[in-house]
Amino acid sequence: MDIEKANAEATERMMEARPVLVGLAKAREVIPGMRDNLLLHAGPPITWKRASGPMRGAITGALIFEGKAKNEAEAQALVESGEIELEPCHHHQAVGPMAGLIAPSMSVYIIENKTHGNRSFSNLNEGYGKVLRYGAYSEDVLERLRWMEEVMAPLLADAIEASGGVDVRALLAEALHMGDEGHNRNKAGSLIYTKSLAPHIAKVAKSPDVAAEVIRFLGDNALSVLNPVMAACKAMADAAHGIEGSTIVSVMARNGTDFGIRVSGLGDRWFTGPAGIPKGLWFPGFTEEDASPDLGDSTITETAGIGGFAMAAAPAIVTFVSGTPKDALNATLEMYEITYAEHKYFTIPPLDFRGTPTGIDIRKVVEKGITPRVNTGVAHKEAGVGQVGAGLVRPPMSIFQEALVAFAEEYGI
Amino acid sequence: MDIEKANAEATERMMEARPVLVGLAKAREVIPGMRDNLLLHAGPPITWKRASGPMRGAITGALIFEGKAKNEAEAQALVESGEIELEPCHHHQAVGPMAGLIAPSMSVYIIENKTHGNRSFSNLNEGYGKVLRYGAYSEDVLERLRWMEEVMAPLLADAIEASGGVDVRALLAEALHMGDEGHNRNKAGSLIYTKSLAPHIAKVAKSPDVAAEVIRFLGDNALSVLNPVMAACKAMADAAHGIEGSTIVSVMARNGTDFGIRVSGLGDRWFTGPAGIPKGLWFPGFTEEDASPDLGDSTITETAGIGGFAMAAAPAIVTFVSGTPKDALNATLEMYEITYAEHKYFTIPPLDFRGTPTGIDIRKVVEKGITPRVNTGVAHKEAGVGQVGAGLVRPPMSIFQEALVAFAEEYGI
Repeated sequence: MDIEKANAEATERMMEARPVLVGLAKAREVIPGMRDNLLLHAGPPITWKRASGPMRGAITGALIFEGKAKNEAEAQALVESGEIELEPCHHHQAVGPMAGLIAPSMSVYIIENKTHGNRSFSNLNEGYGKVLRYGAYSEDVLERLRWMEEVMAPLLADAIEASGGVDVRALLAEALHMGDEGHNRNKAGSLIYTKSLAPHIAKVAKSPDVAAEVIRFLGDNALSVLNPVMAACKAMADAAHGIEGSTIVSVMARNGTDFGIRVSGLGDRWFTGPAGIPKGLWFPGFTEEDASPDLGDSTITETAGIGGFAMAAAPAIVTFVSGTPKDALNATLEMYEITYAEHKYFTIPPLDFRGTPTGIDIRKVVEKGITPRVNTGVAHKEAGVGQVGAGLVRPPMSIFQEALVAFAEEYGI
Repeated sequence: MDIEKANAEATERMMEARPVLVGLAKAREVIPGMRDNLLLHAGPPITWKRASGPMRGAITGALIFEGKAKNEAEAQALVESGEIELEPCHHHQAVGPMAGLIAPSMSVYIIENKTHGNRSFSNLNEGYGKVLRYGAYSEDVLERLRWMEEVMAPLLADAIEASGGVDVRALLAEALHMGDEGHNRNKAGSLIYTKSLAPHIAKVAKSPDVAAEVIRFLGDNALSVLNPVMAACKAMADAAHGIEGSTIVSVMARNGTDFGIRVSGLGDRWFTGPAGIPKGLWFPGFTEEDASPDLGDSTITETAGIGGFAMAAAPAIVTFVSGTPKDALNATLEMYEITYAEHKYFTIPPLDFRGTPTGIDIRKVVEKGITPRVNTGVAHKEAGVGQVGAGLVRPPMSIFQEALVAFAEEYGI
């Protein structure tokens, strides 16, 4: 077995994947295996009992949104009785930021990898502050979700269709030259996304007022493209998954309790350990004491070679996640130590257009003692509150060690 | 006389100016001194006889647009007879990129400096390639100008009014954190500009098709915000002009033949010398042999502390103007040598958010032997062709020396 060859193939497939946003539809209509009593969530599998506050809050909100519960107690009863089932987004070709809740009647972006044919999905971005993905579920949160579902989603679906699709790899390549890293900073990407769809929204909308409202919602949310970007990264990472003999990480994800990874050559098995508390900057009135452990599928961006791995492209991000521009440069340089390839399409101007570090190799992580760097938002540890800050975090080394042991056993090394 | 105090006041006024895009109207209705037989042009004063090819081409195109000439010979006759007069944009609180032609019936952006109350103006951006400002005047060029005037301008005027104004200083501050330098690279700024107006365009347009067309025209042109940005810089530089005893440059501009400057403490006198040929990258099929000498009022950006002075913020620009990201960093560092202040609002992430070098001091230019660096597009030397490349250029040292001698005479030093 030639690990080098397997890793070359995995990273080549990851980089050559060309994810295009091709549509938008209700989760129950398009996500494989989606069913009426199922909620998808971020990270590896989780139970109500072990779920963090923000994850419980988001589950509650999703069940209120679906008309199946009225409060957290009812939500808990439904989940613990098994009447409502929980499964990871990643088990259904999907990803969601923070709690990552996808309910059957929520609309999701549809991404198609034009190179290899696989599809992926993500929910719609709600903006900042008190939002479902951070565990908030007050009436204003649900009101916004209903507006997104009833007003925005049908129009976006028509606009995406009219646009003929949005090439997310090209969008990301451009955004990395405009100070984004594609995870916590998606300012440029969200503007490119907005300008790509805005003419179509203006044209196909049933009323000028609704067109204006939706264009403003996308344009004023510097994370509006995060969800299609995550789905695009999922499509790229999935293209690299299942390569016999490859030690490349194909999933990193957190559920607010556990940090989990999957490895290309090790099938669908999760390797999990405790999710850490991010170090970073806190919103006024909050401290590290308020923080939930790390949460969300958004680490799929680092898995695909952007996000924390591309921080050198985004010096201005330090105003949001802490540190200095020099730290941002060093973050990327450090990640070259544990990756297999330099990206062919994602390049970093301040590093003389060097490709981003791409394809985390579990062997290098363990040998060098360097875990991946992740940029992230931070949720309040209690259900119902929302975002309290943003910062940097790393997965536990133990999961890479366990994966490496499993790899040795699997392949009889 | 306290030169330091005067320069502190001039640069303080330049930085505290807050230019806001407040409207759009026909040049003849809003530009002071505009009249039916007048054309405004870039740079210091010029005659037909001394005008470069692209300047002649643009004058011809403007007169065809106005219905006053049919070809270059007729244009020449009108100008040489004095029936049509030429005056610099800068004599009328206006600026225009490249040839900078503003004819009476063209629409112009109206910028108001909310701090000091002065106004400035610029024409609308046509996009890339064969365009009037590069001296092209074929039927497709005129067709686009007519569409801009008849379809886009009225809608933009309504949208700007509905928006309540666009704060261009805030837009620039953000764009500098997104890889723009504000002169040759206005990718992020143009997207911010588009997203600011797009909801209003969608709302106030008479038809969805026109809304879509105008949003697309703005969004797909990475220079769409250049003209409002230049007018904003003009408003900032004008606020710094006329300070008794100040050695700060308040205008740099080229007409394709001469490079001219004005100095804050020396009134409206121009100091001029030969415009150079930019060094840079050539479009396929063109070489330095095809280039017109340097052209345009866009050096008002460098005058106000952005453009070539902020290149460190825009490492990706080297793909357009030549050089390496390190050169871009060094360009900004060099400009600190000849400027009086570091900008309070325009900061550069890769330099630890240091303010851009602001306020060119003619004393420092002469003492250090360093002339300002300018990013620029390059026009073909013949009328009618258009853009052939982009690159870097510097004004002649002689004009700073002459200005310094004049300053010494004026103030009896």
